[in-house]
Amino acid sequence: MSAQAPSLRQFERFFWEQILSHAGANILSQISNDNCDAYLLSESSLFVWDKQFLMLTCGDSTLIESLLHFIEQVDEDAIIQLHYHRKSEFIPYLQRHHFMDDLKRINQKVTGSAFRVGHLDSHHQYVFCANNGSSEPQLRGCELVMYHIRGEFADYLLSEHPSAEGIRSRLGLEQSFPHFVFDDHCFSPFGYSVNGIYADQYVTIHITPQAQSSYVSLETNLKITAEYPAVLSGFLSMFSPLKWDVMTLNNPLPDSPWDDAFCSLQSQLPLSETERLFFYQYQQNNTEVLIPYAL
Amino acid sequence: MSAQAPSLRQFERFFWEQILSHAGANILSQISNDNCDAYLLSESSLFVWDKQFLMLTCGDSTLIESLLHFIEQVDEDAIIQLHYHRKSEFIPYLQRHHFMDDLKRINQKVTGSAFRVGHLDSHHQYVFCANNGSSEPQLRGCELVMYHIRGEFADYLLSEHPSAEGIRSRLGLEQSFPHFVFDDHCFSPFGYSVNGIYADQYVTIHITPQAQSSYVSLETNLKITAEYPAVLSGFLSMFSPLKWDVMTLNNPLPDSPWDDAFCSLQSQLPLSETERLFFYQYQQNNTEVLIPYAL
Repeated sequence: MSAQAPSLRQFERFFWEQILSHAGANILSQISNDNCDAYLLSESSLFVWDKQFLMLTCGDSTLIESLLHFIEQVDEDAIIQLHYHRKSEFIPYLQRHHFMDDLKRINQKVTGSAFRVGHLDSHHQYVFCANNGSSEPQLRGCELVMYHIRGEFADYLLSEHPSAEGIRSRLGLEQSFPHFVFDDHCFSPFGYSVNGIYADQYVTIHITPQAQSSYVSLETNLKITAEYPAVLSGFLSMFSPLKWDVMTLNNPLPDSPWDDAFCSLQSQLPLSETERLFFYQYQQNNTEVLIPYAL
Repeated sequence: MSAQAPSLRQFERFFWEQILSHAGANILSQISNDNCDAYLLSESSLFVWDKQFLMLTCGDSTLIESLLHFIEQVDEDAIIQLHYHRKSEFIPYLQRHHFMDDLKRINQKVTGSAFRVGHLDSHHQYVFCANNGSSEPQLRGCELVMYHIRGEFADYLLSEHPSAEGIRSRLGLEQSFPHFVFDDHCFSPFGYSVNGIYADQYVTIHITPQAQSSYVSLETNLKITAEYPAVLSGFLSMFSPLKWDVMTLNNPLPDSPWDDAFCSLQSQLPLSETERLFFYQYQQNNTEVLIPYAL
């Protein structure tokens, strides 16, 4: 938002509830500090700072409806930067509409550029980016998405009664993110979400452990690839995913950051003169022997 | 078909035209020999032997409708083996219906088993298989599917006026498949299909060269993985695909058949006491640097 616009944190909770209702999401709980309000949603998250907000959704939610509703509620000229990302679906035939439809609707309100990063027949991400000359650095940082998790932790997540405490302690959040305050929720029968904040920093983790489409995402504005590489490695050891994608702003990964991993794809996208998005796809460096799935 | 059933080749061309019309496909041309009639369709193929037929479709065609119509036309008891395969779509959001719907409809007519081979978020294949004690060996053999083709041949296919002769000679069909008779078609603006037959052997190649979703399939009942490995290697050199899948009946690939290739997945599916389907996914063994695609 522009410097002249009021702080987004002045909006009441009801305002955000209205925005979220357009995505079919609702607030489960909330934590706050001097810089940020962090809302834990039904398998999603919303972070609100003074001049920025970040909303992550998954599953059936319709983020585009929330975005368009937000633009209607505020002065369009006050919006300096707008980033709208859409990941390819895990089970694409369940997809109800497509990014190109979203794009048409956003472009009626805000002018920007759109790209696809990654191939159509693999994990890919759609990115819409509008930038009207902001000097405010983005509060986004790095995203790690892991697919097909395996091992003891994956088994625990699918066990009969995983608890929020059990998952949180296995994640080692307090060790990886010291000083952070956390807010988490364990869904029934499966799934776990946690938000963490410290000053203007955030971390959010969402876990969908179901066997045929397991998926763990970690997103943070810590410079995790550059300054905390052990945190990423730790998450990879914990979940032992078959494949994983990394998206990072301005801090590219080093070559071969992990043993036994093969980088199948890398791509970079300039978002502005000073900002560059890096996208990587990794996979285990050995042949998976897969038993056919009986239907 | 059962030994008592009449030869499928006794059906008139009109019969097959009716079957094909249910898939939205039609016959472009035909070649025949003592064993087989091979029909070249709109980006698809149909092969008819005395006791078996093989129909391959792609794009928008609805193979399931043809199959159900065929079952209605013949005595169900005469059907000894039935295999119905469905590949995951290249652009899944265009998919109009799903294999599970197909399965429900087939199961009302014929009882069999169904499997998914491969992960949901990658290329995968659905297989339905019914076997009522046939001793007739399947006339299927091996399928090579290449994705994201590159290089001189790929460029030629996207050039302004590729010709059937130009494509056929670049494919080197006469050298790879001596004695075969070929029937091909070059589609406008892009795409190429060819059928080839010799005795009871067939080969069929379909090429969709469009840049964002390029795709080449080669299918044959020659024991190509075991007896003609140079043919597969030759096709891989020609098209230099980023990824490729191999499916083969009873003749598994050796370990590491190709240099600079990484086998990310292998799977096997027993179809009967004597028949086993092998499925492999390969990819180039180096990191692809991909430029984001502007929308």
